[in-house]
Amino acid sequence: MNQKKEKVTVVKVGGKIVETPSALQALITAFSQMEGRKVLVHGGGRTATDMAARLGIETQMVGGRRITDADMLAVVTMVYGGLVNKQVVAQLQAAGVNALGLTGADMDVLRSHRRPAGEVDYGFVGDVDRADGARLQMLIEGGVVPVMAPLTHDGLGQLLNTNADTIAAETAKGLAPYYDVTLVYCFEFPGVLANADDPASVIAHIGEADFARLKADGTVTGGMIPKIENCLSAVRAGVGRVIITQADHLGQAGGTEIS
Amino acid sequence: MNQKKEKVTVVKVGGKIVETPSALQALITAFSQMEGRKVLVHGGGRTATDMAARLGIETQMVGGRRITDADMLAVVTMVYGGLVNKQVVAQLQAAGVNALGLTGADMDVLRSHRRPAGEVDYGFVGDVDRADGARLQMLIEGGVVPVMAPLTHDGLGQLLNTNADTIAAETAKGLAPYYDVTLVYCFEFPGVLANADDPASVIAHIGEADFARLKADGTVTGGMIPKIENCLSAVRAGVGRVIITQADHLGQAGGTEIS
Repeated sequence: MNQKKEKVTVVKVGGKIVETPSALQALITAFSQMEGRKVLVHGGGRTATDMAARLGIETQMVGGRRITDADMLAVVTMVYGGLVNKQVVAQLQAAGVNALGLTGADMDVLRSHRRPAGEVDYGFVGDVDRADGARLQMLIEGGVVPVMAPLTHDGLGQLLNTNADTIAAETAKGLAPYYDVTLVYCFEFPGVLANADDPASVIAHIGEADFARLKADGTVTGGMIPKIENCLSAVRAGVGRVIITQADHLGQAGGTEIS
Repeated sequence: MNQKKEKVTVVKVGGKIVETPSALQALITAFSQMEGRKVLVHGGGRTATDMAARLGIETQMVGGRRITDADMLAVVTMVYGGLVNKQVVAQLQAAGVNALGLTGADMDVLRSHRRPAGEVDYGFVGDVDRADGARLQMLIEGGVVPVMAPLTHDGLGQLLNTNADTIAAETAKGLAPYYDVTLVYCFEFPGVLANADDPASVIAHIGEADFARLKADGTVTGGMIPKIENCLSAVRAGVGRVIITQADHLGQAGGTEIS
């Protein structure tokens, strides 16, 4: 059945890329040259941390996640939804891409609920309930390229800070009933490495069984574990394939395919 | 011919309304109850000035217009495009309105050029060249309510700060070929007053000839002159009618009709 669906590519780029002018310019060029329907998801954490510091607001991270009190929510709303998102949109427009910046609140495309306080109270942080693939499809079929900031809402008026990797995975899942979806995570390495010191040691493919083995033998550790779990959960939810690669290699072959 | 067109209402609200929680809540309620197709345009100048001050950036105004250097452009991009826009969108969504926040860069809906430096160099300030009514129509016919921040772009990657009254007028003009457009400017008085001290002295209707007379006899002065000129220019460009009224009276009869 997938053969009949149109293809769409969801590309996630981290803050380091969109916050470094030369890297952003390279991304804009590579992304604008990608064929077909596409969606861009971006981070912006470093700019948020810098802006918070300039405003005298302390950044607290737990397990790599930002504690988001009301002041920090205002900062990330400004930085992710405004500064970073609109600069990316304006530059994509200049490159001929009909970009439209979105948070989850815009057209209600990503609904979430505030994460309940457990051992850690992350504050105004959202866990995604659903992406509205039909509304995203309406935009995409109108020739629009959604550019998604890592913010969602609860449908009751509350904006919520949401991890950009999760936004990308949930968006890809939401689009899966309508499209043959490829989800591409761009990060600083050319893929998942068999040997962390050797950038040429990219593992070409990781499936469920491979992942268990790579965790057991210590090849895959730390933050790479939840990242690959995220990828596998997207595959189980109908996303055609997930690729982890370097931003510089966007639109080229290579990287690690998770499926 | 206009009888065959669907109606759309473009509502412009100033910063004082969207920046005061109780006034914003009243606006959200009134706007969400308005029947039919609609567009909201908002300001946010006071929050921008406050945020600039917190960041140690001095605000310079000339003739009521903000001088926008690179630092101030970052502030207004964050505040108008992020903080204010996304809060309004999230609250409208909670009120059942399918809001979508837009700057002029998003879907290229409002293209402008940087105002040439004359006696005053306003910096990164845009004068609007055109609104893309067809793209806005695509959204509106999809059940979307555009919520427009006072930012545009030049199509070459540069965001530009743009007066919200102008955004509203240009959006209304851009929609005029497709809709029977009513443009509503909400401000702090119930309409244009014959006697500034008497809120009951609202002038019900001002046409071109009335405007000349009201300027000549000193009834209309100061900042109200360019506001009414803006309104008349919208009428000349095909906007059905323009109304100046109080935000509290949105959706009710009354105010001053300019046509």
